[in-house]
Amino acid sequence: MSNKITTFEKNESEIRAYCRAVPTVFKSSKNAVMIDENDKEFIDFFAGAGVLNFGHNNPKMKEAIVDFIQRDGVIHSLDMYTDVKREFIDSFVETILKPRGWEDRKLQFTGPTGTNAVEAALKLARKVTGRTEIVAFNRGFHGMTLGALACTANNAFRSSSGVPLTNVIRDTFNDMEALENLRQKMFDLGSGMLPPAAFIVEPVQAEGGVRPATKEWLQGVQKLANDTGALFILDSIQCGSGRCGSYFSFDDLDVDPDIIILAKGLGGVGTPIGMLVNKPEFDKAWGPGQHTGTFRGQGLSFVAGKVGLDYFKDEEFNNETKRKGDIIRKVLDEINSKYSQAIEIRQKGMMLAIEFDSAATVKEITGKCYENGLIIGACSTGEIIKFIPPLTIEDDKLNEGLNRFVASVEAVL
Amino acid sequence: MSNKITTFEKNESEIRAYCRAVPTVFKSSKNAVMIDENDKEFIDFFAGAGVLNFGHNNPKMKEAIVDFIQRDGVIHSLDMYTDVKREFIDSFVETILKPRGWEDRKLQFTGPTGTNAVEAALKLARKVTGRTEIVAFNRGFHGMTLGALACTANNAFRSSSGVPLTNVIRDTFNDMEALENLRQKMFDLGSGMLPPAAFIVEPVQAEGGVRPATKEWLQGVQKLANDTGALFILDSIQCGSGRCGSYFSFDDLDVDPDIIILAKGLGGVGTPIGMLVNKPEFDKAWGPGQHTGTFRGQGLSFVAGKVGLDYFKDEEFNNETKRKGDIIRKVLDEINSKYSQAIEIRQKGMMLAIEFDSAATVKEITGKCYENGLIIGACSTGEIIKFIPPLTIEDDKLNEGLNRFVASVEAVL
Amino acid sequence: MSNKITTFEKNESEIRAYCRAVPTVFKSSKNAVMIDENDKEFIDFFAGAGVLNFGHNNPKMKEAIVDFIQRDGVIHSLDMYTDVKREFIDSFVETILKPRGWEDRKLQFTGPTGTNAVEAALKLARKVTGRTEIVAFNRGFHGMTLGALACTANNAFRSSSGVPLTNVIRDTFNDMEALENLRQKMFDLGSGMLPPAAFIVEPVQAEGGVRPATKEWLQGVQKLANDTGALFILDSIQCGSGRCGSYFSFDDLDVDPDIIILAKGLGGVGTPIGMLVNKPEFDKAWGPGQHTGTFRGQGLSFVAGKVGLDYFKDEEFNNETKRKGDIIRKVLDEINSKYSQAIEIRQKGMMLAIEFDSAATVKEITGKCYENGLIIGACSTGEIIKFIPPLTIEDDKLNEGLNRFVASVEAVL
Amino acid sequence: MSNKITTFEKNESEIRAYCRAVPTVFKSSKNAVMIDENDKEFIDFFAGAGVLNFGHNNPKMKEAIVDFIQRDGVIHSLDMYTDVKREFIDSFVETILKPRGWEDRKLQFTGPTGTNAVEAALKLARKVTGRTEIVAFNRGFHGMTLGALACTANNAFRSSSGVPLTNVIRDTFNDMEALENLRQKMFDLGSGMLPPAAFIVEPVQAEGGVRPATKEWLQGVQKLANDTGALFILDSIQCGSGRCGSYFSFDDLDVDPDIIILAKGLGGVGTPIGMLVNKPEFDKAWGPGQHTGTFRGQGLSFVAGKVGLDYFKDEEFNNETKRKGDIIRKVLDEINSKYSQAIEIRQKGMMLAIEFDSAATVKEITGKCYENGLIIGACSTGEIIKFIPPLTIEDDKLNEGLNRFVASVEAVL
Repeated sequence: MSNKITTFEKNESEIRAYCRAVPTVFKSSKNAVMIDENDKEFIDFFAGAGVLNFGHNNPKMKEAIVDFIQRDGVIHSLDMYTDVKREFIDSFVETILKPRGWEDRKLQFTGPTGTNAVEAALKLARKVTGRTEIVAFNRGFHGMTLGALACTANNAFRSSSGVPLTNVIRDTFNDMEALENLRQKMFDLGSGMLPPAAFIVEPVQAEGGVRPATKEWLQGVQKLANDTGALFILDSIQCGSGRCGSYFSFDDLDVDPDIIILAKGLGGVGTPIGMLVNKPEFDKAWGPGQHTGTFRGQGLSFVAGKVGLDYFKDEEFNNETKRKGDIIRKVLDEINSKYSQAIEIRQKGMMLAIEFDSAATVKEITGKCYENGLIIGACSTGEIIKFIPPLTIEDDKLNEGLNRFVASVEAVL
Repeated sequence: MSNKITTFEKNESEIRAYCRAVPTVFKSSKNAVMIDENDKEFIDFFAGAGVLNFGHNNPKMKEAIVDFIQRDGVIHSLDMYTDVKREFIDSFVETILKPRGWEDRKLQFTGPTGTNAVEAALKLARKVTGRTEIVAFNRGFHGMTLGALACTANNAFRSSSGVPLTNVIRDTFNDMEALENLRQKMFDLGSGMLPPAAFIVEPVQAEGGVRPATKEWLQGVQKLANDTGALFILDSIQCGSGRCGSYFSFDDLDVDPDIIILAKGLGGVGTPIGMLVNKPEFDKAWGPGQHTGTFRGQGLSFVAGKVGLDYFKDEEFNNETKRKGDIIRKVLDEINSKYSQAIEIRQKGMMLAIEFDSAATVKEITGKCYENGLIIGACSTGEIIKFIPPLTIEDDKLNEGLNRFVASVEAVL
Repeated sequence: MSNKITTFEKNESEIRAYCRAVPTVFKSSKNAVMIDENDKEFIDFFAGAGVLNFGHNNPKMKEAIVDFIQRDGVIHSLDMYTDVKREFIDSFVETILKPRGWEDRKLQFTGPTGTNAVEAALKLARKVTGRTEIVAFNRGFHGMTLGALACTANNAFRSSSGVPLTNVIRDTFNDMEALENLRQKMFDLGSGMLPPAAFIVEPVQAEGGVRPATKEWLQGVQKLANDTGALFILDSIQCGSGRCGSYFSFDDLDVDPDIIILAKGLGGVGTPIGMLVNKPEFDKAWGPGQHTGTFRGQGLSFVAGKVGLDYFKDEEFNNETKRKGDIIRKVLDEINSKYSQAIEIRQKGMMLAIEFDSAATVKEITGKCYENGLIIGACSTGEIIKFIPPLTIEDDKLNEGLNRFVASVEAVL
Repeated sequence: MSNKITTFEKNESEIRAYCRAVPTVFKSSKNAVMIDENDKEFIDFFAGAGVLNFGHNNPKMKEAIVDFIQRDGVIHSLDMYTDVKREFIDSFVETILKPRGWEDRKLQFTGPTGTNAVEAALKLARKVTGRTEIVAFNRGFHGMTLGALACTANNAFRSSSGVPLTNVIRDTFNDMEALENLRQKMFDLGSGMLPPAAFIVEPVQAEGGVRPATKEWLQGVQKLANDTGALFILDSIQCGSGRCGSYFSFDDLDVDPDIIILAKGLGGVGTPIGMLVNKPEFDKAWGPGQHTGTFRGQGLSFVAGKVGLDYFKDEEFNNETKRKGDIIRKVLDEINSKYSQAIEIRQKGMMLAIEFDSAATVKEITGKCYENGLIIGACSTGEIIKFIPPLTIEDDKLNEGLNRFVASVEAVL
């Protein structure tokens, strides 16, 4: 097999990472299964870092995009109008926004990455308020371009910026005391701290280790944002699009974000997209073209993404997500009670984490998983394993994957 | 027709721009033709802002990606290995790098936008040198995320950042005197200026108004970069991938960039991609995962992009590009000699610009072009019209587009 | 009288401030009394913003500097050696450092202002650690030049900087919970916060409203500094030089600062000085001339300052300071218990504050004090009156001044 | 002798610099002579880094300040009004401003150091314009606090800041081409550079190596400042107060600065001061207390400074300055023609420099000068010797000092 990866070792950058943990060449994939060139079958509990909520090569999406290509649909349109873009917007408004009373919200398509959408949200908040500082939280992940990276917490990522990461006030996630302390500083003219442009929060921290915000804290953040005249931004890039058992992971928290950031699962089948959902009173601060980007008009993403939205026309899909999440939960709880090295299980819908005692333990387990034909990833600073299989995973594949995980844990611990 | 754009006016952000100049809904496109929902046919001299070098819905690319989808190829793979990524890399090495003696270069796939690739290049340069400052040039365009935006010159874009754009030294493009002055400052310990991390240059400024770097100046920049221990970065996002009559627009300038930045046309059919070509001695400064991004493994882009690379196996395609560029040139030269409001023609290969006396004149002309069924865009600060049709445009469409342009100019001037 | 201030109104900058509250021209001063050109006598409870600990025109200092001038002593010496500088250093070592076991400390003379000394301390901390961030606290005041101003809390001062005030982490003074939260962030690799270069604290906040640090909190700050490898800097500019009943205001708190910053009272009779007391293991990070300044060698300040140091050869002077502080305290306590508009009394040694309900109340009271012949100043954001008479004030003048204050309060409330 | 400097070696900071080149302890000084504890007499061609224009212990100044002290004048007054401050202002207006038609200018007293005055000037310019960037020039020296240091050019000083020095655009002194290039950038909306808040220039660079600005260039800078709406700031700290044969070194250049910065010689006898001369239309942007400082009201500096101003009531003193400058010039010209290691002589009034081939040569010469009883200093990056004796130096001392210099040069070369 090694000859098959020579190309990569010879001509791809040293920056490559996931492929070092999964050192094989994949040739096809279907729902929760990936197959390599040796015809080995892997069950995928990583789903392209939370993108493939609807599975690899989702059949409805495949059909839709092949039809679209064959009828010469407009694949690339910048921000010009196309029929499929309209259908995507209409569908998002009808299926997602209207039931929440948000049908006046403005959708802004950015460059097709999460980090680009984050950068646009920060610009808008700064433009609306005329302020510079953003409040961001520990273990938060918001992207790798300079503006977003300043909001990202992990020092391993931050330290590669090469320049100071500025204009961000750092605080502690899910910590009511810290929030109260921040409030005091912000209303104290002798604190040296002025009201910020925005608070940016993940309703469920994904990369940070699957940490759902509590209702009390998230509402507290929203209130402090409102009280200081700052925008309240929810980064739903990984936790949104149905991942947590509801379209938005914050649907049960009774909050009203000024900007919602979406990407990853929104594009359907791995076809990329980045989008903001802006309150109109803030959106109007934009002038034409003030945040551009070549690939904002991705026809394939609109087509596949619309198929994805259809899953949310009723609650059946969400219920299935929760049911499957609980299947995983049960297995993880058992591991947690059995092994002292397992420390905590965290879950919202079908995003789960098991935290171990060390990154070393986790590395051994995920290495064994790979051997056993399971793709699964660590997160945070390495001591946590995250479970984000396709939401559409079949029960037998889910159980088989869990068996492979349990076997791997047993082999290591 | 207006009812058909209600969706956008009601639920899309106020930031939308191109669609205001081209206020119609497109439903299909083929090579250099776009068709709207009223079945009006437009000739496309803008090519998705320089992305669609091989035309809308290039038939070979369509076939390749439909086959790929239908065989359940891996559409989304992060930075894991896939067969189609390997084929893309092999093809790039064989077709592009080897003939230039650069077969040891390292390809780095970034988030699939130009600006993301620029951010990665800046990080690498800062990491390699341990320095912070980047030299960038007037009228340069490098993207809209915070790190790239600091390198972008146009104040209309810069003013939306909301925070200071720092760590960039600004200098003047194609100006030998300015370059000499900069050299003096950099070697004067009493200048307050230290050696920079990198110089970032577009070999042909595209958005800045089609301004090809002279050989003398670009070599001077490279020499100053080398002499100061800075990296020499060529941003070839819009001018590369065959646009200027050779694969790289700088192939005739005898330079040896430390990092080449590619995006736009590299992905083939509007399927997005961002890629760096790094010298190995600098690439090795990267540690695994130091600049990540969800959508770095775009199977569709690898497949369509590889088809695009095949065009460069011999010189025939480049020769055609130059031939067609000269067809455009001839028409623009005639306009230039006929109308006093036309000031200058600039060209490299099939990227051309005609500069008029004012942005107001240009706005009238491009408005008339739209009426006449020609999509064409202004650039820089509005006083320049840029010609970047698909390189694959048929001669009759090219001539018909030029006729429409001439008619529009005549109607206005 | 108004003709006498015409010069100032006509040719002095609009920035003038204290003189607006005390709009008369002073011609002489002696200990705690200032006399204006109308021969009106004022009792001075402000002491030149805490400089004149030993009184206006202290007779011993007068004699010493007149002798020095008449023998052609070196008034201005940059950082060259002079006899009087040596005597000042010897005296500081003998009288102040040795009794504390700090005779190895290194004295660094900076430009003769507090803010310049603060800038030097920040540079040294950043040089020693190779880090950039400084932790500073709410209501802290450290000066008005850009580096020091970034550490100063009051937004009224900060907002005049005209540029971002960066590289400072803001936290809450005397708040153990906030300190614990900061500790967590600093040891969490996922917090986005790295260890700082230094913590800068006033042991007693003066301008911030006379707030003595608690022992528990200040030791906590020192421990966090030590644990993170940061320097622990005590800004003793206003609270030092005997003001609080001991040479250093932190003598009773059992701390061991890496850098002590002194200015104000250190120079004796209003003759300016700025000085750092550095631990030798950090001081050695300096190279020659890395923080220069023209007026670092102030002969008059060394001469008068040495006389000031002599006051601390035994405890008598400190005991007097405490005794007089308690006299003031008693009067303020009575006011506090009598008037609902009085909120709190704070004290350390002979620095006291009475906090009222509003800045408006305070403005009326201090205005009435001026009429009654008492010079006294507000601080913080205006709602606090600070008592810092010369430490050498005679009892009768002290009582007379307090009577004037009480009369002013009674007239207003 | 070494025992006499033990104190400094043991308890003074490692940062000390001048004293390493002049390792003796001075006990008295008179006009241009300094005497050490061994009764060795030195002639002083350095004058306290350009402070002592009127000599050490100028007899008129001594008399004035002794009288002032003995009558209990107000030595320290913050920004309160005093009789001696009024006399200083009146004298400055009458003697300096009126003859230039500038009697409406506003004098702003800052903390008593040049760097503090520079910081205040930068704040005012930023406040007036609402802009952030300052244009500063190579080899410029403006001080060591963070805001001023960002304007200072010498990398040896800059590198000790420990944080990025931002918000300054660097350009080349006395270079018309560079200025023209800067103008182009500032009026090009596609340059990435916006109009600055101010240009700060020394009319004669002192620390940078005695480089007088040409009339053409300085007027060009003023015009560019005016055209861009920026303030034109002249830093006259070292070159002003009569040093160059006229009160301001730019009196012959027909410019009209918006802010003049003064310090050093303005205070008379080494008594410190910092002062701005602001145009009233800009000064009014200040609000009360927006740049404060404890030692702004230095009675001794007002008294001695006023005596200094009296020297400029007629042209006799300036004529003497020029005459003595030419005596030095003649000797330096001879050295320059005699030794190949001498490269260039530069002069304005009584500030002169001789540039040698290397810093090593200069170090040898100044070392020999010390042995021969001459105090003289290197500047810039070490290869230049600067001549700035007291303007009041007697002819015999001047000639004797020059003889010692010539002997030192001869001994080395």
